[in-house]
Amino acid sequence: MPTKRTLNIGLIGYNFMGKAHSNAWRQVSHFFDLSAELELKTICGRTRGAVKEAATKFGLKEFVTDWHRVITDPQIDIVDICTPNDSHCEIAIAAAREGKAILCEKPLARSVDEAKRMVRAVKKARVVNMVCHNYRRVPAIALAKQIIERGQLGDRIFHFRARYAQDWIVDPEFPIVWRLQSERAGSGALGDIFSHIVDLGRYLVGEFKEVGAAMETFVRRRPQSRDAALRRQDGAARRPYQRVDVDDAVTVIGRFKNGAIASLEATRFAPGRKNSITLEINGNDGSLFFDLEEMNRLKLFSRHDRKPEQGFRDIIVTEPIHPFIRNWWPPGHIIGYEHTFTHTIADFVKAVVARTKVQPSFEDGLQTQRVLEAIKKSVRTKRMENVPAR
Amino acid sequence: MPTKRTLNIGLIGYNFMGKAHSNAWRQVSHFFDLSAELELKTICGRTRGAVKEAATKFGLKEFVTDWHRVITDPQIDIVDICTPNDSHCEIAIAAAREGKAILCEKPLARSVDEAKRMVRAVKKARVVNMVCHNYRRVPAIALAKQIIERGQLGDRIFHFRARYAQDWIVDPEFPIVWRLQSERAGSGALGDIFSHIVDLGRYLVGEFKEVGAAMETFVRRRPQSRDAALRRQDGAARRPYQRVDVDDAVTVIGRFKNGAIASLEATRFAPGRKNSITLEINGNDGSLFFDLEEMNRLKLFSRHDRKPEQGFRDIIVTEPIHPFIRNWWPPGHIIGYEHTFTHTIADFVKAVVARTKVQPSFEDGLQTQRVLEAIKKSVRTKRMENVPAR
Amino acid sequence: MPTKRTLNIGLIGYNFMGKAHSNAWRQVSHFFDLSAELELKTICGRTRGAVKEAATKFGLKEFVTDWHRVITDPQIDIVDICTPNDSHCEIAIAAAREGKAILCEKPLARSVDEAKRMVRAVKKARVVNMVCHNYRRVPAIALAKQIIERGQLGDRIFHFRARYAQDWIVDPEFPIVWRLQSERAGSGALGDIFSHIVDLGRYLVGEFKEVGAAMETFVRRRPQSRDAALRRQDGAARRPYQRVDVDDAVTVIGRFKNGAIASLEATRFAPGRKNSITLEINGNDGSLFFDLEEMNRLKLFSRHDRKPEQGFRDIIVTEPIHPFIRNWWPPGHIIGYEHTFTHTIADFVKAVVARTKVQPSFEDGLQTQRVLEAIKKSVRTKRMENVPAR
Amino acid sequence: MPTKRTLNIGLIGYNFMGKAHSNAWRQVSHFFDLSAELELKTICGRTRGAVKEAATKFGLKEFVTDWHRVITDPQIDIVDICTPNDSHCEIAIAAAREGKAILCEKPLARSVDEAKRMVRAVKKARVVNMVCHNYRRVPAIALAKQIIERGQLGDRIFHFRARYAQDWIVDPEFPIVWRLQSERAGSGALGDIFSHIVDLGRYLVGEFKEVGAAMETFVRRRPQSRDAALRRQDGAARRPYQRVDVDDAVTVIGRFKNGAIASLEATRFAPGRKNSITLEINGNDGSLFFDLEEMNRLKLFSRHDRKPEQGFRDIIVTEPIHPFIRNWWPPGHIIGYEHTFTHTIADFVKAVVARTKVQPSFEDGLQTQRVLEAIKKSVRTKRMENVPAR
Repeated sequence: MPTKRTLNIGLIGYNFMGKAHSNAWRQVSHFFDLSAELELKTICGRTRGAVKEAATKFGLKEFVTDWHRVITDPQIDIVDICTPNDSHCEIAIAAAREGKAILCEKPLARSVDEAKRMVRAVKKARVVNMVCHNYRRVPAIALAKQIIERGQLGDRIFHFRARYAQDWIVDPEFPIVWRLQSERAGSGALGDIFSHIVDLGRYLVGEFKEVGAAMETFVRRRPQSRDAALRRQDGAARRPYQRVDVDDAVTVIGRFKNGAIASLEATRFAPGRKNSITLEINGNDGSLFFDLEEMNRLKLFSRHDRKPEQGFRDIIVTEPIHPFIRNWWPPGHIIGYEHTFTHTIADFVKAVVARTKVQPSFEDGLQTQRVLEAIKKSVRTKRMENVPAR
Repeated sequence: MPTKRTLNIGLIGYNFMGKAHSNAWRQVSHFFDLSAELELKTICGRTRGAVKEAATKFGLKEFVTDWHRVITDPQIDIVDICTPNDSHCEIAIAAAREGKAILCEKPLARSVDEAKRMVRAVKKARVVNMVCHNYRRVPAIALAKQIIERGQLGDRIFHFRARYAQDWIVDPEFPIVWRLQSERAGSGALGDIFSHIVDLGRYLVGEFKEVGAAMETFVRRRPQSRDAALRRQDGAARRPYQRVDVDDAVTVIGRFKNGAIASLEATRFAPGRKNSITLEINGNDGSLFFDLEEMNRLKLFSRHDRKPEQGFRDIIVTEPIHPFIRNWWPPGHIIGYEHTFTHTIADFVKAVVARTKVQPSFEDGLQTQRVLEAIKKSVRTKRMENVPAR
Repeated sequence: MPTKRTLNIGLIGYNFMGKAHSNAWRQVSHFFDLSAELELKTICGRTRGAVKEAATKFGLKEFVTDWHRVITDPQIDIVDICTPNDSHCEIAIAAAREGKAILCEKPLARSVDEAKRMVRAVKKARVVNMVCHNYRRVPAIALAKQIIERGQLGDRIFHFRARYAQDWIVDPEFPIVWRLQSERAGSGALGDIFSHIVDLGRYLVGEFKEVGAAMETFVRRRPQSRDAALRRQDGAARRPYQRVDVDDAVTVIGRFKNGAIASLEATRFAPGRKNSITLEINGNDGSLFFDLEEMNRLKLFSRHDRKPEQGFRDIIVTEPIHPFIRNWWPPGHIIGYEHTFTHTIADFVKAVVARTKVQPSFEDGLQTQRVLEAIKKSVRTKRMENVPAR
Repeated sequence: MPTKRTLNIGLIGYNFMGKAHSNAWRQVSHFFDLSAELELKTICGRTRGAVKEAATKFGLKEFVTDWHRVITDPQIDIVDICTPNDSHCEIAIAAAREGKAILCEKPLARSVDEAKRMVRAVKKARVVNMVCHNYRRVPAIALAKQIIERGQLGDRIFHFRARYAQDWIVDPEFPIVWRLQSERAGSGALGDIFSHIVDLGRYLVGEFKEVGAAMETFVRRRPQSRDAALRRQDGAARRPYQRVDVDDAVTVIGRFKNGAIASLEATRFAPGRKNSITLEINGNDGSLFFDLEEMNRLKLFSRHDRKPEQGFRDIIVTEPIHPFIRNWWPPGHIIGYEHTFTHTIADFVKAVVARTKVQPSFEDGLQTQRVLEAIKKSVRTKRMENVPAR
């Protein structure tokens, strides 16, 4: 047996997403058959102490504080971008120029303009590229996609209804963090969680045609975080309030090109909804329902079932026949949140080895960005706005 | 003990709503303490054979085919209007002139103009009036109202999310019926089921400020019904197709005057959703969730619960302490759809006897109509539209 | 059209069951096509004031305080026994001798001996007889029966698992009532609610072969009720404690004659379970699950479904095609607890008119009693005990 | 910072449990703060090719085919036994003699006698020992334990109701495997899955006092597996049938020493139940419900909640305040099956380092075995049998 090629990965970012991605890089070879060895070679973060600690925790020997060192490292094959949104564009373009394959956290960019430049860069460099909308690879979502593609909902979709709801900033004393600052995040709930909704809509139903939207920032000023206060030597006692200049919630109606109606929402102000994505799709032959808080399940209603026994089926998506599951555990033994990243990386690695495309690509990320931008415009104009074609 | 006064009721209409209302009139005295005797005196319908059969089935001795005879009958105290929407206005105004108390099925009217004339008539005649939005008196909904009024969701509502979904016309061969004809129904899903959503939003959250909407008619031509074909002596063999000129689905975003965001929908094209109203309300201290298909339950999340045990409570709304329940069965013994009409009529009768107001009044019906009209306008203009103040 | 025969009913008992039965007698003709007119002629109870009030509430003109007057009334065709368990036997035997058709509340009797005498009496008199196990006629249960009979669970049942759980006496200060006194009730949870479990097991799976059981009385002394104290002129201040001499809970394992294993339970000590009957049946081709607290639903798992989409179907049992539903409301409009009595009475009346048998008969009640008695014996012997054959 | 001590682990067994344990050993350091480095040094299995493949897959450099080499390896600190049940006793005793800390898969042994010898050996050798009942460390189960210990269910438990249900051998053509052979497994559903039920009962409620049981083998002959047939050079064409001499299902009633009633079941014949453990515990102040198929949730009913809003709370056990969760992801991001092993190993390693006891110990395993043996006896005698005290 010939030795497998080794792919070296450079991971930029070490917080929540850095933790999730490093786990996936470590785990994927133990569960999926890949035609390459993977080596999580280096991790990068700006704060030396913190990135060093992360390197130890995540099991890497090497860490750096300047991302340029990662992308220029000739041994690095793959750059995995897990930084806040304001650096995605610059890092990705630079990495593309260095010929690295790129996995980039969502949202791809802060604007259509940034996203376009990123797409241009990866196309020019002909590097494999992927935006990490990990929820496409929840087995239940992948099964939903198969069901739709097999025509089991019929030849016509009437409704796509989706909502991403969290509650982590309901408390007005929850401090300012980068996700609540426009400069770094680009937007609030819109880019952070609504982008997943758009991605799932495009994946499962098709391209958006038009959107109408309302947005709201429910809490407009928040205290500085204790850490930030300490860093500024202000002491925790004097925590000045700062302006929240991103959206807390966004509500959208729209139409897909295929005629389906969309009813969409994202909010960080739904007490009790921790990380809930609910989806319902209604077609002329049936319906699908999914809730991320019951991630290992998919509900399917089929008008083809015998009439007296029609009802939503509660499919436990843990059978070997289901997407990605064969690699894990026996039926009924559920998988968790982080497995979606392992699935994403398994498919990404296959594409890197085979030098093929993999979805969702940077182009997908750009198109999602166009939808987000049309939504922002609609909020300003209070009109239904067209989504520019791909 | 003095003999109770007897109230005589004239019921106009004998189909689905006639069946539901007649049941409630029969049942209410056996379960609720009312200070009047009720006599369902006469039933009215245009088709003699059918109304005669209904009279027998519903237990009435008297039936007529001309509604004028009902409203001019001096013995009649209450006129209960269960006819298709196109006759609500005319009958109600005439009944008001005769000094009758009026219960009218929803939607109150086909237009704001009709609704205004009806309000004017009942005000002038000073008769007790009510529009039959029966879902306000689902015990779980009434409990939700109490919870909100006690401030248990906090002093601020962020989101009202509601959807009324059915699937009875998904099949394109389902025939034309009056509910699918603009002339008689005024609108489709909008007036028939979305009006309940508007009513519940106004009841639970407050007045609407602005709305943006999309509408769709998914199946634009349908066969004439077998009955209609037979009546026209065409024979079932030749069932011509007729145009559907009402909406099959409507999707709405909006804002309440109190700042809450609305995400609303009604559709008759959701396979597997039989008569589903789902509501979610998020406030700064908690959330409520309700699903009409689990009508005897209400889910409540409270941020005041001890942190490790926070979670949506699944309240089975069948305790004597819950609204309306003391009159029925012991805890855990659920009630059904028709009980909501019994509750509505119990409250209506109390108002008639006491000559007080009862909600939802014709004025409520008018304000709901204003919201529906703003929605229709928004569909035309593709803009967010203001809802005129009460 | 010839005039229908009128059946006169005498109702003995006016409390919870009297309320439920009187409602069903009133309602049934309005929803079901029966070939007889029904007249709820007289109601009987020992306490004059209370029965008079009940008569008014339930809409009867006539009431008596001596049940002999009911059964000897030549105009009475049907005697409906809703009294505490200690009088079922005497009343039923006397009514049979008078040639009355008899509907008797469950449990049929306090002992096998009583039940045998009752069966003998109705057989000798050749009167139509039925024991009111109303849950057989929950539409979802009736659908479960159809599914099993159509062989959709396969040709072999492995497991029947059922539990009836309530929580109304968890509080040790809840007073003594007749249901907690052996003399009047015969047993506690066993006869009152476990008898339903036995009846449903016999209905859905078959005859029991053997049982092993444990019983417990968790609270052995309870205060006299305020009413009882008042009646004894003791004053509420001195409420003496009385011994509870019936079971609070019973747990059973067993086998059916067809080889299925039973795991059964009834308890009044399950906080949060208000009136919960959960059933699960596993066969070689599929499974059924039912929960009375979601009475309008039935869950079905079929091994014949396409493998990737197998899952428990959540059937909303409100379609016209479902048992009993055609008489009520459109799909998705749920029915309540009391409707099960209406269904029971509809079938009973048909049998009375046609002079046919109707299930569950007194013989069914007797066989259920044999199972209960084997359980009591097993509690004493601490052995598995055979259930005598029918 | 002083270098951490390194603990070397020898893993014996490489199938399902070998996969689960090796994953946990790899993962634990990345998520939990341990005061030792862990090195999964060697893996052992009898079939050379298979164990070699497993070593590669699981990321170990070393593999052996004779377990004696593992336990006598002086570098090995911890022996992790994941073999079929028939070798647990011999390996564990030998490992104890070599002074190794021991983690052993459940059931600890095939008999009380074996278990006693194992306990004696670890006591004599004073080695840290643990039986891997991983479900104790499902966060929701650990939360249930905290709730009970805080007295939130009251001072008295009435009922413990539990069931472990699977469906993997419903098909009679599913082949013989070691888990269906008494010689290797000791028992069927009893030792494999019912042992978890016993362990959870002992953990959450207390010691068992007496049990009564029924057992069944629904399919008594099964074909040899394709692999086994091939190994025997019989060819797949001639797959002889072999006798199944273990139980397919077991149903139990019983009592705890504290007076609680038990209703327990395990089955591999429940179509649609994939890996379902349902638990319900009823105390005088509240109830708990858990379902392993919704592993990240716990339902709690409290009689102390305000009366009108009482209901089972659906706690999503993913908050930092919940057991084990702080080490994983933010609220609402669920964990999977294998995380329970990671939790188990985290606690085990802490005990090894600190040389303290850890639950469930081999003594716990022995006591569980006593319950299983009393159940077997009860099946034979058809009597309620006492469980010998610890």
